[in-house]
Amino acid sequence: MVELASTEVSSNPHIEDFSTNLFVYTNFLIFTLNPNTDTMGDIQAALADLKSGKPIFIYDADGREEETDIVFASGSVKHADIRFMRQNGGGLICTTVSDGVAEKIGLPFLVDVFKTAQAVHPVLRNSLPDTLPYDTKSAFSITINHRKCYTGITDIDRALTVAEFGNLVRDVDVGTCEYPLKSFTKAFRVPGHVFLLRTSKELLKDRNGHTELSTAMCLMAKLPPTATICEMMGNNGKALSKTDARKFAESQGFIFLEGHEVQEVWKTWSG
Amino acid sequence: MVELASTEVSSNPHIEDFSTNLFVYTNFLIFTLNPNTDTMGDIQAALADLKSGKPIFIYDADGREEETDIVFASGSVKHADIRFMRQNGGGLICTTVSDGVAEKIGLPFLVDVFKTAQAVHPVLRNSLPDTLPYDTKSAFSITINHRKCYTGITDIDRALTVAEFGNLVRDVDVGTCEYPLKSFTKAFRVPGHVFLLRTSKELLKDRNGHTELSTAMCLMAKLPPTATICEMMGNNGKALSKTDARKFAESQGFIFLEGHEVQEVWKTWSG
Repeated sequence: MVELASTEVSSNPHIEDFSTNLFVYTNFLIFTLNPNTDTMGDIQAALADLKSGKPIFIYDADGREEETDIVFASGSVKHADIRFMRQNGGGLICTTVSDGVAEKIGLPFLVDVFKTAQAVHPVLRNSLPDTLPYDTKSAFSITINHRKCYTGITDIDRALTVAEFGNLVRDVDVGTCEYPLKSFTKAFRVPGHVFLLRTSKELLKDRNGHTELSTAMCLMAKLPPTATICEMMGNNGKALSKTDARKFAESQGFIFLEGHEVQEVWKTWSG
Repeated sequence: MVELASTEVSSNPHIEDFSTNLFVYTNFLIFTLNPNTDTMGDIQAALADLKSGKPIFIYDADGREEETDIVFASGSVKHADIRFMRQNGGGLICTTVSDGVAEKIGLPFLVDVFKTAQAVHPVLRNSLPDTLPYDTKSAFSITINHRKCYTGITDIDRALTVAEFGNLVRDVDVGTCEYPLKSFTKAFRVPGHVFLLRTSKELLKDRNGHTELSTAMCLMAKLPPTATICEMMGNNGKALSKTDARKFAESQGFIFLEGHEVQEVWKTWSG
């Protein structure tokens, strides 16, 4: 169990730049909610699961995507976890990165890359997202493969890409990576088979997407700000219903959270 | 069963521009191989299956990716087919488009988009593919969602994107789409959840990838030059072995082909 119970109440002054030194902000005592509430108990258990390499399940919100994502901390992803996601999720397997770390490496939003290329490729002029039905912008960044991948798509290859990206994010986040951009291009090939998702700048203040919810959970677990996530699909052509996603998670002994529960604890944690 | 037996041997003079009017090249009598051979029988059955909306299975080659892809003709893809691919394949669900149609719409290789954006996004400078272990280039084009999608990732949404893209490719291919670029941007949003793959210029003369093999099968089936494909993964972290992929396909009553069989028939068909 991670140490979440707080003996001293404090907000975290580093939250505006939450991607900076992990060692700094883990020194702050962070939780004010009563750990006896159901929400706090579930969040505590979920953070412990993330730290030990287990998946957690996060449903965003009624009226938004209404999807549940399987979530792993990127650094601990093994090839069996990729298989777990594709067999029990079935959506895209994507890896998040906090805005701060993305900025240091130079990982752009894909939309910005496409805007830059509009002059040469007219197909990118009138096709970029302007009317997403549930949000104002897409979180997609570029796609990557680790250079030691063969095809890039096997579970072993995707796990290698994800875990090595997790290590890079950790090093950039704590400041032990001197040349983030150079380290990235040395380790990864673009385009690839793992989809990077870049969080919004102010994380859950800006956006309630799985990109932000899962990355916020990593931060609260004192893990590097990168999660690997996959949407759960149903057999009726639609996203798996919240009820069925919860049933599946609980039948496997895993924690199922809703976005508003993560938001609630995050607000306190981030001050 | 499609009419493949040939009474007049002829090469297809339009193959250098195989994406041009489908109605033109279907007038040519095309097969010289003896339809009694095993290969020809399998190819005939596979073309009939593609035309009737069933999947076929294509293994590329020993020493190449050594992967089997599930292949559907894009125009007939239903949401159950997307589920079939994610549950029995597990790789990325991608949609191919012939070089000729891609050129008319203006769909670039992703690598070329990234090259264009290098000046503004330095991360794209030293990360582009130069040392792919099994090929010289990546077939990835941009990712798309149909504008009527909600999240874009559900089986219903991906099937809508794929089938509508199939219709656009058909119209562009036969010349009934007056403004291919405008029709594309009106119907699709970028980036999305379906990965377009652009074939090499000379199709199987240039490259023996699943992008080319599956698109060549569509052409030989007299279908628009777009297939939707997904790699089959095993439970051991690697691609599903050729033996197990063949076993699965045959157990379901579907046709399993190897790249060299497609190549053999294609050489005759394309002259």
